[in-house]
Amino acid sequence: MKIALFAGDGIGPEIMAEARAVLAALDLPGLVVFEGDVGGAAYRRHGHPLPQETLAMARAADGVLFGAVGDPACDGLERHLRPEQAILGLRSALGLFANLRPARMFKGLESLSALRPEIAGEIDLLIVRELNGDVYFGEKAQRTLDDGRRQGFDFMSYAEDEVRRIAHVAFRAAQGRARGGRSGRLCSVDKANVLETSQLWRDVVIETHADYPDVTLSHMYVDNAAMQLVRDPGQFDVVVTGNLFGDILSDQASMCVGSIGLLASAALGERQTAFGTFGLYEPIHGSAPDIAGQGSANPMAMILSLAMMLRHSLGREEDAARVERAVSQTLADGVRGDDLGGTAGTREIGDAVLARL
Amino acid sequence: MKIALFAGDGIGPEIMAEARAVLAALDLPGLVVFEGDVGGAAYRRHGHPLPQETLAMARAADGVLFGAVGDPACDGLERHLRPEQAILGLRSALGLFANLRPARMFKGLESLSALRPEIAGEIDLLIVRELNGDVYFGEKAQRTLDDGRRQGFDFMSYAEDEVRRIAHVAFRAAQGRARGGRSGRLCSVDKANVLETSQLWRDVVIETHADYPDVTLSHMYVDNAAMQLVRDPGQFDVVVTGNLFGDILSDQASMCVGSIGLLASAALGERQTAFGTFGLYEPIHGSAPDIAGQGSANPMAMILSLAMMLRHSLGREEDAARVERAVSQTLADGVRGDDLGGTAGTREIGDAVLARL
Ligand SMILES: CC(C)[C@H](C(=O)O)[C@@H](O)C(=O)O
Ligand SMILES: CC(C)[C@H](C(=O)O)[C@@H](O)C(=O)O
Repeated sequence: MKIALFAGDGIGPEIMAEARAVLAALDLPGLVVFEGDVGGAAYRRHGHPLPQETLAMARAADGVLFGAVGDPACDGLERHLRPEQAILGLRSALGLFANLRPARMFKGLESLSALRPEIAGEIDLLIVRELNGDVYFGEKAQRTLDDGRRQGFDFMSYAEDEVRRIAHVAFRAAQGRARGGRSGRLCSVDKANVLETSQLWRDVVIETHADYPDVTLSHMYVDNAAMQLVRDPGQFDVVVTGNLFGDILSDQASMCVGSIGLLASAALGERQTAFGTFGLYEPIHGSAPDIAGQGSANPMAMILSLAMMLRHSLGREEDAARVERAVSQTLADGVRGDDLGGTAGTREIGDAVLARL
Repeated sequence: MKIALFAGDGIGPEIMAEARAVLAALDLPGLVVFEGDVGGAAYRRHGHPLPQETLAMARAADGVLFGAVGDPACDGLERHLRPEQAILGLRSALGLFANLRPARMFKGLESLSALRPEIAGEIDLLIVRELNGDVYFGEKAQRTLDDGRRQGFDFMSYAEDEVRRIAHVAFRAAQGRARGGRSGRLCSVDKANVLETSQLWRDVVIETHADYPDVTLSHMYVDNAAMQLVRDPGQFDVVVTGNLFGDILSDQASMCVGSIGLLASAALGERQTAFGTFGLYEPIHGSAPDIAGQGSANPMAMILSLAMMLRHSLGREEDAARVERAVSQTLADGVRGDDLGGTAGTREIGDAVLARL
């Protein structure tokens, strides 16, 4: 079992240290751990945010645990040298097309949401975001027109197989979440009243539905979805959407939960390892440069990302559940970081989770 | 003074009747009113959602009051025949590039927002959405690749003059909102870490800022903006963004206010009339087919759209303020429609506003 740890920028190294401690405590048999540079940290050391050796390390691993990239000191660089290119490059080079972003209200934290507690308390959804297509990786350019005006353009595209494979992931996730006699529900979000990519998206999702008659499928325009996520997020079970809309809606959903410091994500590809599906796991909160180096960042999202890796890439469901229980227990015991209105620091929270493993 | 009324589909005709009654009560000197067909209603009568005569009527007018388009009975039609094409066609043919979407909490209605009242109470923002460019009107197609796969694509583009003119509108709006010694603030929302169109957008907004040194300019990525609109919408004054992001964020912001039945919008072009700027005015709530024909729709957003027309296109600031005061007073007196947890119907609300003019 081989895993790669890419701590990255900002608070990345601090929270990664806590996830590492949890990993060590699990004492997985035959585990080999590599560490690699990404983001601004990698740029400074190697002149590139995603060095070849980092990429090779990821390819050789069963799973990648990723901290965060983003560094204000790199703002002036050309786009292809900026820290964010590390995560975009990994997603693309490793074929990580399925981004799973669960957003669930943690019991007892309802009052932290900007939403009214009775609304926030209902949130338990999974956003499945396509991660390899859309306007992210299509041709893009700036050019100067004959009359001297500058023009920028970005090419948005989806092919049916790209849509179909993410639809399958989403339908299966909805099946897996069906419980208590209630069928799984999938809401596909697009802008089919304006975009051809969305029209194709909708057609293919409907075709794919034939394989999953037990899942209830609905469709929503993205502007309406952004409204409904505020009005009544409890109506959603699994949401599937394209790369750009997924970027926006998943951040919005996470803020509805009120605790961006608690949310983990998985980016899965097609490659199967000996233990599960190859994937990259990262907290959704980002590098938070304003609080980097202070030891105050909440490592829980990072630790929960490790749990997702244990489940999806390493075939260790029991360990995953154990880590998740320890985090829930830590929260229930009132150990809270700055982001949750508490005073516990990074190390203290990590230790508290460790003590409850 | 010539205006065109396009009531459209669903609840459009019902709410338009109330706006008409308010307009009649104002007794504007020399006012000529035309009525035209749009949307599904127009498709049924003329075979097209935006007939030539409707477009000609709009061109001849100083302002257009627009109800709503959208009709489930037209769902099966090809995209270019669907009701929504009427509004897209008008925006494009009339060069309506500047969409103003104010979202402000009405005093006493804080408890209707899904956000906690103390957060919702702070909302007083204006979204300035570009309305003629982006991925909306670029080339779009579906094709079948050599290997038989279908592919959809949409071309996203912005030229610098398109960005510059909307930036000017937004900076001027920010100047106009500066008050109490506080400078106007403009937040430009893009996805410059991924898109070339956004990079150009950001560059041009920064260049345009030179003309407005009294306005404080900031930049935000769209995913972060969607989060911040939930976390702390009170931080925003004027927000300027492209067509697609504006579609999503403005609907989200309106739902944060909690009362989509109260929000009006203006779409302005470059053409100056004898009285102001030519524009099209519509409530943001849409055709609401589920409650059409029941006399239960809240006409306030439609009436407030009329007020925006009086202000921007007809040079009747005093009448605009009079209409807005009458609506506020009606709300303060507890006259509330279904959407605000009350029982007043369309006609009753319209009459209540009239009585307070
Ligand atoms: C950093 C950025 C390129 C990235 C994205 O847009 O995908 C981020 O916002 C995310 O959601 O992981
Ligand atoms: C109906 C639709 C094409 C339109 C848009 O996307 O612009 C609507 O959502 C709006 O915001 O006015």
